[in-house]
Amino acid sequence: MNKNIKDSTKFPVHGLDREGPRIPYTGSLLDHWLESHRHHPDTRYLPFWDLGVAMCRNPDPELYWCRGRDLSDGLAIDDTAVFLGISDDGVACFATLIDEATQRKLEVQNVGFVDARSAAAQLEDGRAAIVAQARSLLNWHSQNPFCTRCGSRTSPQMAGSQRACTDTDCGVVIFPRIDPVVIMLVVSADGEHCLLGRNPGYPGRLVSALAGYMEPGESIEEAVRRELLEEAGVSVKAVRYFTSQPWPFPATLMIGCFAMAEDRLHIT
Amino acid sequence: MNKNIKDSTKFPVHGLDREGPRIPYTGSLLDHWLESHRHHPDTRYLPFWDLGVAMCRNPDPELYWCRGRDLSDGLAIDDTAVFLGISDDGVACFATLIDEATQRKLEVQNVGFVDARSAAAQLEDGRAAIVAQARSLLNWHSQNPFCTRCGSRTSPQMAGSQRACTDTDCGVVIFPRIDPVVIMLVVSADGEHCLLGRNPGYPGRLVSALAGYMEPGESIEEAVRRELLEEAGVSVKAVRYFTSQPWPFPATLMIGCFAMAEDRLHIT
Repeated sequence: MNKNIKDSTKFPVHGLDREGPRIPYTGSLLDHWLESHRHHPDTRYLPFWDLGVAMCRNPDPELYWCRGRDLSDGLAIDDTAVFLGISDDGVACFATLIDEATQRKLEVQNVGFVDARSAAAQLEDGRAAIVAQARSLLNWHSQNPFCTRCGSRTSPQMAGSQRACTDTDCGVVIFPRIDPVVIMLVVSADGEHCLLGRNPGYPGRLVSALAGYMEPGESIEEAVRRELLEEAGVSVKAVRYFTSQPWPFPATLMIGCFAMAEDRLHIT
Repeated sequence: MNKNIKDSTKFPVHGLDREGPRIPYTGSLLDHWLESHRHHPDTRYLPFWDLGVAMCRNPDPELYWCRGRDLSDGLAIDDTAVFLGISDDGVACFATLIDEATQRKLEVQNVGFVDARSAAAQLEDGRAAIVAQARSLLNWHSQNPFCTRCGSRTSPQMAGSQRACTDTDCGVVIFPRIDPVVIMLVVSADGEHCLLGRNPGYPGRLVSALAGYMEPGESIEEAVRRELLEEAGVSVKAVRYFTSQPWPFPATLMIGCFAMAEDRLHIT
């Protein structure tokens, strides 16, 4: 794989360890492990305010990690904390929403709250993907306080990796939603041109590859063909997967493809 | 692309036209178009009962399409009908749930109701993907009668392509959920072996490629690595996308990859 190409994605490889052998695989062992780590004094929290992530300059832009004890009160770790992974030095890391009093307290300490897109542009290595995961999960929790099946309240479980209906007759468990999106660069049959789009709302001279949400009952390759016919009236031959990245606005999986047009591309 | 390989997927290319120029792109034009076609006498309906699809033998196994007038009453087309696409002969096609009386009436006419997995095994060309789309959408509607944000009732819009909260203060619109899953064949470093898994619940000698749901904040390639570490303790080098297909149990996008193990695979 071409390292430069992978580096060009905004949300590259995640910076925390998210799988064994240090984390129990599933079930009650995992639940117990998460609960004990959530209240461990070494555990690190990444605060979010209004879906913006806490950052400071130190001197470079840096995520602001704190411990539960760093904030005498106001760190609402019980309900909204979501597990992110384990750091290189073996410490469990969570993200949490904070209240306005805590946000003001942190701002006095020169901690700012930055939207995920700007944060990703300022962060290198695996930290942008941490922001992507945290923002998607916290947003999902805030948007799902009620059960889709019976309308009762839901509550978080397993340190934020799922929610369950509080009605014992229903009890349905729901998992975070990820919406697959195809984003594709159309290349003309002669290889000389490519097709980019411009949304009237885009600033300046910004153009973009065409993209669209996948629909039930289609493959990645079919979604590329359908979207290109719908959006641009372009028929394509071969569709080739290129790479993928999470895009937490709010919880998208961007699936990048190349599509070879059947004809030369004509500008109309 | 290798035709034989694509044909090996259970839910290949969709058999109905789902994009322009015969279908308005979006907004009120589309809504009007869908409403007028939903009640058009030529429109075809594919009935579902308990998420099984209507099929008959004619003499080969065939989807059972009917018209609204074919069923004097009981065809509940108003609330549950979902738009599937346009047939080769230009007719709009919908899927709909039916009530028990209609189901009994159809069974007398030798129409059976077959689960989607069995139906896919019996159907060729694009019909299995139609079943996948219809089953995913109908199941999604049945599982989402309430708003996740405020707990009020939701109702279908745009011929089943979305639902909206009926509470005017909320009014949130929700779209069908698709859950991306990575499924991967691990190949040993020497290219001599591959890794398959066996769930204790599998019948007979059935084995399967390893698979798992993607999580927020990761790419396809990272999900493959994480799942293989979690499920099998195997580290992999290169991950290569192979192909994808919808898998409507209940609404999965299966993303097939090859993964090259760092070592030889040892059976333990």
